[in-house]
Amino acid sequence: MNEVRVIPVAGVPDVREGDDLAALIAAAAPPLERHDVLVVAQKAISKAEGRVVRLDELEPSAAARELAQDGADPRQLEAVLREAVRIVRTRGSLVIAETRHGFVCGSAGVDASNAPQAGTLVLLPLDPDASAARLRERLRELTGTAVGVLVSDSFGRPWRLGTTDVAIGAAGIPVLLDLNGRRDPTGYELHATTIAVADEIASAAELVLGKLDGVPAAVVRGLQLEGEGKARDLVMPPERDLFR
Amino acid sequence: MNEVRVIPVAGVPDVREGDDLAALIAAAAPPLERHDVLVVAQKAISKAEGRVVRLDELEPSAAARELAQDGADPRQLEAVLREAVRIVRTRGSLVIAETRHGFVCGSAGVDASNAPQAGTLVLLPLDPDASAARLRERLRELTGTAVGVLVSDSFGRPWRLGTTDVAIGAAGIPVLLDLNGRRDPTGYELHATTIAVADEIASAAELVLGKLDGVPAAVVRGLQLEGEGKARDLVMPPERDLFR
Repeated sequence: MNEVRVIPVAGVPDVREGDDLAALIAAAAPPLERHDVLVVAQKAISKAEGRVVRLDELEPSAAARELAQDGADPRQLEAVLREAVRIVRTRGSLVIAETRHGFVCGSAGVDASNAPQAGTLVLLPLDPDASAARLRERLRELTGTAVGVLVSDSFGRPWRLGTTDVAIGAAGIPVLLDLNGRRDPTGYELHATTIAVADEIASAAELVLGKLDGVPAAVVRGLQLEGEGKARDLVMPPERDLFR
Repeated sequence: MNEVRVIPVAGVPDVREGDDLAALIAAAAPPLERHDVLVVAQKAISKAEGRVVRLDELEPSAAARELAQDGADPRQLEAVLREAVRIVRTRGSLVIAETRHGFVCGSAGVDASNAPQAGTLVLLPLDPDASAARLRERLRELTGTAVGVLVSDSFGRPWRLGTTDVAIGAAGIPVLLDLNGRRDPTGYELHATTIAVADEIASAAELVLGKLDGVPAAVVRGLQLEGEGKARDLVMPPERDLFR
């Protein structure tokens, strides 16, 4: 096993709706190589895709007002409820919800930080796997190289503090690695042998992404992954989920 | 932000109880540099510390026999129950439990894979933060360089398939990074701004650790982290935990 390099893609201008994000990234990234994995922060994807709502366009429902009683903005809670297909837990205005994609995360992925302007919220892409596939295809057009692409986001998790970045979209790389041929469908077997490699790559990329200094992507180089999966494959089937 | 390198530490002989693990790693690693983070797989630490039990020394309790009714080895379940301070969920012989350290993981960290010999189980270190601190101190003696040290293990998680590596021990580096001065104690706030950087570093290291080809450690180079924390600081306080 060789060393793995995590290379920040810096100097990408602030992303706006309709931007050719692949072109912006290709111009800022080092020359791409086969087996590279490009990890792109969800927020950049969502902004390019126009997945942004204005708070003043949101009319809070009674449920949103109820959740916001601890001083949160009921319009923001309204956005969360619209993005959620299932509420998993709430405590005050903290809502842990399942998204249309099957991901369970805080605020159903709705985020007010780094929004394009004050008074707006950024939503998750409608289909982040498709976003990753489009970006991969466009990068191939632009550079001649087919790389793996991950869309990453910062998720909390039970039992442990802080967020780690995970993959919410994937194209051109596997998302799960089965080390010994025995698929572990739960992640919890006595012999846990399936690694969520896409999530680990997303976490590695976060180390250079820098939410504060505007590096929206990273190139992870040195992995020799074969195969293809979708981030949706990372979602635990409900019948196996002990924490619904 | 510069690039981050994840360098495998290969050629470490199989670790046995009483081995000077720091010396084995120092001999195999590249020259260590200030700000390096050395990530060591839990199993190597546990073996060096003798945290291994023989199956034939375990007398299964009634509870262990009950859990093992799906064909699992009741002695293995006995080891799990002895390592657990709280059972969080079970399904058949699958036990998700809280360890003495406060970590919630499958089988309370008991693992039969890569055990030193057939018929043995590897347990988590008694105090992985102390293990990390000892390794850091011994490495400083041997190399003159004080590096960050993480002890990593592969944990499953709710809602998502597969395992990711997380930090169960830490010394000489921070484990949580607060990006804007507002501590997010849950990991789930609308503005989640606390990053579990130690877990992300552990995941990055896993990309080269290679459970199959015997690379027990990796050097993560290029981070400029300041501060110190313990992996225990990553445990969510029970009163904030929505998934107990």
